[in-house]
Amino acid sequence: MAQKPSIPKGTRDFSPLEMTRRTYMLDTIKRAFRAYGYAPLETPAMENLSTLTGKYGEEGDKLLFKILNSGDFTRGFSDDDRRRIASAGEAADASVNGMAARICEKGLRYDLTVPLARYVVQHQAEIVFPFRRYQVQPVWRADRPQKGRYREFYQCDVDVIGTRSLLCECELVKIVERVFGDLGIAVTLKINNRKILFGIAETIGHADKMMDITVAIDKIDKIGLEKVEEELAAKGIDADAIARLRPILQLSGTNAEKLAVMRNLLAGSETGLLGIDETETILSLVETAGSHLDIELDLSLARGLNYYTGAIFEVKARDHAIGSICGGGRYDDLTGIFGTPGLSGVGISFGADRIYDVMLALNLFPEEANRTTQVLFANFGDAEARAALPLLQQLRDADIPSEIYPEAAKMKKQLDYANRRNIPYVVLIGENELASRSATVKDMRSGEQQTVPFDRLAEELTR
Amino acid sequence: MAQKPSIPKGTRDFSPLEMTRRTYMLDTIKRAFRAYGYAPLETPAMENLSTLTGKYGEEGDKLLFKILNSGDFTRGFSDDDRRRIASAGEAADASVNGMAARICEKGLRYDLTVPLARYVVQHQAEIVFPFRRYQVQPVWRADRPQKGRYREFYQCDVDVIGTRSLLCECELVKIVERVFGDLGIAVTLKINNRKILFGIAETIGHADKMMDITVAIDKIDKIGLEKVEEELAAKGIDADAIARLRPILQLSGTNAEKLAVMRNLLAGSETGLLGIDETETILSLVETAGSHLDIELDLSLARGLNYYTGAIFEVKARDHAIGSICGGGRYDDLTGIFGTPGLSGVGISFGADRIYDVMLALNLFPEEANRTTQVLFANFGDAEARAALPLLQQLRDADIPSEIYPEAAKMKKQLDYANRRNIPYVVLIGENELASRSATVKDMRSGEQQTVPFDRLAEELTR
Repeated sequence: MAQKPSIPKGTRDFSPLEMTRRTYMLDTIKRAFRAYGYAPLETPAMENLSTLTGKYGEEGDKLLFKILNSGDFTRGFSDDDRRRIASAGEAADASVNGMAARICEKGLRYDLTVPLARYVVQHQAEIVFPFRRYQVQPVWRADRPQKGRYREFYQCDVDVIGTRSLLCECELVKIVERVFGDLGIAVTLKINNRKILFGIAETIGHADKMMDITVAIDKIDKIGLEKVEEELAAKGIDADAIARLRPILQLSGTNAEKLAVMRNLLAGSETGLLGIDETETILSLVETAGSHLDIELDLSLARGLNYYTGAIFEVKARDHAIGSICGGGRYDDLTGIFGTPGLSGVGISFGADRIYDVMLALNLFPEEANRTTQVLFANFGDAEARAALPLLQQLRDADIPSEIYPEAAKMKKQLDYANRRNIPYVVLIGENELASRSATVKDMRSGEQQTVPFDRLAEELTR
Repeated sequence: MAQKPSIPKGTRDFSPLEMTRRTYMLDTIKRAFRAYGYAPLETPAMENLSTLTGKYGEEGDKLLFKILNSGDFTRGFSDDDRRRIASAGEAADASVNGMAARICEKGLRYDLTVPLARYVVQHQAEIVFPFRRYQVQPVWRADRPQKGRYREFYQCDVDVIGTRSLLCECELVKIVERVFGDLGIAVTLKINNRKILFGIAETIGHADKMMDITVAIDKIDKIGLEKVEEELAAKGIDADAIARLRPILQLSGTNAEKLAVMRNLLAGSETGLLGIDETETILSLVETAGSHLDIELDLSLARGLNYYTGAIFEVKARDHAIGSICGGGRYDDLTGIFGTPGLSGVGISFGADRIYDVMLALNLFPEEANRTTQVLFANFGDAEARAALPLLQQLRDADIPSEIYPEAAKMKKQLDYANRRNIPYVVLIGENELASRSATVKDMRSGEQQTVPFDRLAEELTR
């Protein structure tokens, strides 16, 4: 007896029901991307390991899934590797990574940003800039699996490369509004600007410590003002500077009020004022385009990745606490790592798994995303099934997902099948119906039945 | 200066234009699957290596991409492996596969059939049978890359598991007709039945050599009658049997005529007659459902995989020679390899890459699959761009893919961008247009321009 098969930890099968919901969600997101002129891109699951390593920090390198070279992979080992392996059990971390790189040329994509940068540099001669692209593909990370964290998960990225125009930031904000509006999720979009954060650091006399300050104030929601100030002190920020930072962290009022106060506070920082200008322009462009989105300037928003250089965004669901469900920002040097500097871009990423969880928790999937088949024809035997076939065909041709139960099983079994698959309508064509050329249509939710002549069946069921 | 980045051989980037076409093609295929009541399934890219090995023959095992274990992978090596590696350069094929399995627990999916079997066995308690599912995902094979053969490619499979009803075969034939009808590809569907092939082998006195006979006659289109007969002789089929096989290989006429002749020839084979019955039933069911598909009973059709047990199908494009673009059949024991015998199923697989090539060669992609953006608003500066934003918003809200050129660049550059991206309409709102609140709409294909008041622009461009 074979062992019951399983799948690798941290990976998932998506059942038909989950897939139908996920498809509804991802199609809604992609439709918005397309309406805004973004074009789809797909890159291979496997990249050369040299493309991936060194791009995600030392921790990231360890989390890359590496693909063993085909054929006799052992040929890759160096003499030193061979000695080390022969003497067993004492391989240090660093030597393991080196050895792995010698027997693995390829790795699985870790995110969609590095493949985008690689694609843009590799194809820069053919690409028409500004390049608006979206990409919805799985990525793989050898993270320790835990609740809500998987080793294979989808990213949905949308970016525009090759322009510094703030119309792009406006566009992305509008995409956020459209996507979450279409999905029925009430959200708040938090906006900030890395230039403002730099301006703050500069103003309090610690321009060199911008990243420390940024990382610390990013935690204000989680650990509170006091602990953030302790952390800042531990990073070597003096008490005077921390005192000057306090009113900024506790800023309140409308976005316009906050910006006015900040403009005064950052009067001595050219970069800081530029960040204020950018933020005002983005908010004003969004208003001009027309928007009902709840947008909040949040000076404690920093976002972890250190390649952002301008506006930064983060989206939270208002009715379900799950952390950020979408985020991104402006970066000024995406492709520098591959030898093409100076291409500015801005992008955001939608967190498919979290958005799915929010929709499930708030019951936001529409009825049609919770089933696949709309109409089941019951099967009473060969003659009856043959009478059903042309009728079934009319529904299928009209894109009403329909099927016939393939065998003349007991009616209880067939109706049970319809119930378990959440099929709303069952068409019964038995001996009597065959004689009268009228089908019995059973609504599985209400239990109601009605008689419909064959020649009006398609019309009735496509309404 | 960094080296220009590249991707692993045998893999591909799909550019926005290719993706737009592929999405059109795959969405058309998926829409047909859904109309016939099939539900989507996705399985992880990585399966446990134990799930994959031994399922594709010895050759197949070598073509599996294996994923190196995370952390200190060298711990997996046996003492024997360590000695072998230390003594360098003499690893035999068999020992390499064994060593690889000890340092790799996971491999990339090689097809969609084994993951389906694994899924069905693993989830049999929750699955509602008969289980109609479709799956469109990439697979990976470490084949030597060559023209038209890739190491990463999509498969589009549609299967129904858990019933022997021939209504399913009928359904799949109708799906073939629908898909290629929608895509505009004229096709011939070839149909045969493994039971007929067994009947033939039995009738000529070589029931034990059915696979040899099947493999040989599968080649009749490629190498001709004479060479097939040589091959049969080489396999130990006697001259008398080969002579009796000849009229079958040269059978002609309508499907009904062929079946009538075969019914006589196979009178002594119970299995053979069952195959004739099945084929007649399938053809008759398809006719009852209504069909204009060109279906040809082709007794030389055998298909390579030896797990087929009933009807087999193959689809060829009539106007472009490229080999089979779709194929499949009935199998009686898909899940036996995982310990659950007796589940019959039938399925077909659409060859995405070949179908794409046929469509490209025959120019079958509709105009809208050859571009992404429908309308570009030219950018004449801040005031003009701001006037454009609400108009742009109307189009985007109506799902007309639209964008604004993000910078007030020279008009030549902006129109060049529209041309290179194959955007059919450019909306010009300059100083004059702003004053008169009327836009100039330029049709980029004809070069014609017309003036449209702002409040009628959306209506005009969404027609």
